[in-house]
Amino acid sequence: MDLESLTTTSGEWLRGSGPESAIVISSRIRLARNLAQFPFLTRADDGVRSEIETLLRSKIENLDSQCNLGYLDVGTLNDLDRQFLVERQLISRELAESHGSRGVGISEEENVSLMINEEDHLRMQVLRSGFALDDCWREINLIDDAIESEVTYAFSERWGYLTACPTNVGTGIRVSVMLHLPALVLTKEIQKVFQALQKISLAVRGLYGEGSQAMGDFYQISNQVTLGKSEEQVIAAIQDVVPNIIDYERRMRNELIKQNRQGLHDQVSRAYGILRNAQTISSEETMHLLSSVRMGIDLELIDGLDMSTINELFIQTQPAHLQKIQHEPLESAERNAVRASYLRRRLSAADAERN
Amino acid sequence: MDLESLTTTSGEWLRGSGPESAIVISSRIRLARNLAQFPFLTRADDGVRSEIETLLRSKIENLDSQCNLGYLDVGTLNDLDRQFLVERQLISRELAESHGSRGVGISEEENVSLMINEEDHLRMQVLRSGFALDDCWREINLIDDAIESEVTYAFSERWGYLTACPTNVGTGIRVSVMLHLPALVLTKEIQKVFQALQKISLAVRGLYGEGSQAMGDFYQISNQVTLGKSEEQVIAAIQDVVPNIIDYERRMRNELIKQNRQGLHDQVSRAYGILRNAQTISSEETMHLLSSVRMGIDLELIDGLDMSTINELFIQTQPAHLQKIQHEPLESAERNAVRASYLRRRLSAADAERN
Repeated sequence: MDLESLTTTSGEWLRGSGPESAIVISSRIRLARNLAQFPFLTRADDGVRSEIETLLRSKIENLDSQCNLGYLDVGTLNDLDRQFLVERQLISRELAESHGSRGVGISEEENVSLMINEEDHLRMQVLRSGFALDDCWREINLIDDAIESEVTYAFSERWGYLTACPTNVGTGIRVSVMLHLPALVLTKEIQKVFQALQKISLAVRGLYGEGSQAMGDFYQISNQVTLGKSEEQVIAAIQDVVPNIIDYERRMRNELIKQNRQGLHDQVSRAYGILRNAQTISSEETMHLLSSVRMGIDLELIDGLDMSTINELFIQTQPAHLQKIQHEPLESAERNAVRASYLRRRLSAADAERN
Repeated sequence: MDLESLTTTSGEWLRGSGPESAIVISSRIRLARNLAQFPFLTRADDGVRSEIETLLRSKIENLDSQCNLGYLDVGTLNDLDRQFLVERQLISRELAESHGSRGVGISEEENVSLMINEEDHLRMQVLRSGFALDDCWREINLIDDAIESEVTYAFSERWGYLTACPTNVGTGIRVSVMLHLPALVLTKEIQKVFQALQKISLAVRGLYGEGSQAMGDFYQISNQVTLGKSEEQVIAAIQDVVPNIIDYERRMRNELIKQNRQGLHDQVSRAYGILRNAQTISSEETMHLLSSVRMGIDLELIDGLDMSTINELFIQTQPAHLQKIQHEPLESAERNAVRASYLRRRLSAADAERN
C-alpha cells in the first residue's frame, strides 16, 4: 500500500452524508482480539511479536477479496507517517508509539483498519460517516468471523474474549460515536450531557481518543463496559442515548437561532472570514473556527460550502497532514503559515465553485 | 443644493491620490472671519443672526463663478442631515449643534465649505487630498479676498482679525493635516510624537476635531497659535514638522515588516476577512479594521483594493451616512447590521473587479 496516495484522498467516513451527519461525524466499532497460541504482548519478546505479525498479516491479506485491504508495516514507518495515520484515525496513538513488529491493514475507502500488535494482537476497527452503528457492526462482524475461521482467538467460556487489559475482556468491543456539539458547548449545557452519560457508564473523549482534549467541539462517546453484556446490548446502549443528544444539540441550535440569529450568523461568518484570509493560524484556532463554520452550514447561515469540505479540513490541517502535503518537515510556526495557506486555497476553490 | 445627491458621491479629498496620501489623508485650512457691522454671535439675537446669514449667503452665492458653491440652510435641516454633514467634514459639530439662522456653502467637489454663523460669522474651509497645504492656502486666500472685497471684516491694526474666541484672534487661521499613523500606534512610538508636537505648540486631535477620540489611528495635527505670526509662518510650522512624522511612521512600518512580516500580513488579512464577512459590526471596530487594511494596501500586503475605497468606507460607515444610504432612521444595533452589509457589498464589488 502506498501511504503517499492517502494525501490526495480522504476517508469515506468524512463524506458527511451518513445519517444525522450534521451532528454525528462518524460511528465506529472496534474489537480487541488475541491469538490463543501466543502470550499477550506485555510478555512477548521481539521474536514472538514478529511471528504474530507475520501470521496475522497473512490472514488479513487473505481477506482481500472481501475488503480490498492494503497493508502498512508500521514498524518501518517514520514518526511523521505514523502521526499522519493517527490523525487520519487509521491507527491508534498506541500503535504509533509502540515498538517492534506491527502493522495495519487499511481498506481503500479507509472504513476498515485492522491493527496488528497494538495493545492486543489484533484490533479491528470499522468506521462509517454519520450515525450508522448497525452498518459498522455488520461489517466488523463479518471480518471478525472471517479471521476467526482461520485462527484460534484467546477465549474463555467464562470470561469471553481475553484481552491484554482487563477493561476489554468479554466482548472486546468499543462502540463509539463522534459528535459535533457546538451549541451544547455555547449554551454550557454540555456539562449536563457529561453527567447523564457518566451515570450510564458511557465515556466522553476528544477527537483523538483517550486522554485527548475535545477540540472544535467534537466529543466521542463510547462504552466503558465490555463484560457481562452482549455486543448487541453494548451497541444498543449507545444507539439509545445518541438520538437524545442529537435532539438536545438540535434544540440548542434552534434556541441560539431564536435568541440571536444575527449574532450567530455574525460569529459563523467571521469564523469563515478568518479561515479564508488568515496568513498564520494554529491548529487549535482552526478547529475552533471550522467548528463554527460547520454549524453555520447546517443552520444555512453559510451557502455553497459542503459539509465534506469542512470535515476534510479538520483532518487535513493537522500537523502531520500539512507536512505530508508540503513534502517537508515543518516547525510549528511554519505549519501555522502552511495551514493558513492551505485553508485559503481550499476555501477559495470552494468559493470559485460557488460563483 | 440637493443634500441627497451627496450620498451617492464622496469628497474629492478622499480620492487618496494627493502627495504622501499613504500617510496623509488630507490637508485643511480654515479662516475665521466676522463682519465689522454686526456684534459677535454670543451677543447677536435671532434677528441679527438672520441678517448676517442673508448678507453672507448673498456674497457666497456671488462666488459661484469661482467655485460653483451650493448652499444648504443648516437651520432647517433635521438632526440626521446635520450629522451627515459633520461626518463628511463639511460642517463643524458647532455649526450642527448651534441654533437659529445658519448655513454652509459647499463646492461641488466638497473641497470648499463656507460656514455662516458657526462660532464666528464666517468660517471658511478648504480641504485637499494628501499633503497639500500650499494648494489649500492658495485657494482659501482667493476666496477670502473675494469676500473681503465685498464686506468689511472686523479687523484691528493691532490684533488683526477679531474673532468670537480669543484663541483665533490675529490670523484666524487653523492649519491642519489628518494623518494615518497605525505603525506609530502599534509600536507605541506615538506618545513621543505627541510630546514633540506639544513642545512646538501644535495640537493633536481625532478624526472629528476638538474633543474627539483618535479612532482608526487617525490623528489631526493643527496649530494652536493664531496671533503674532503670519499665515505663512503658521503653515510653514506644520509643513516643517509633518514630513518628520511621515518619515517616522514610514520607518515604523518598515520596522514592523522587518520584524514580523507574516504577523503583520496576518493582522491585515484577518482585518479584511472580518470586514468582508461580518454580519454585524460597530463603528469603532470598523475604523480599527479599516485602519489595518489601509496600512496593508500601502505595504502591498493586500492587492487590488484602492486606497480611495478604504478612505470612502471610513466616512460612509459612519452612523448618519448609513441612515442616509438606507433612507431610514436606524437604532445602533440596526446600524451595526447595515454597516456590515454595506461593507460586504462594497468589498465584494472590489473583489469582483479584482478577479
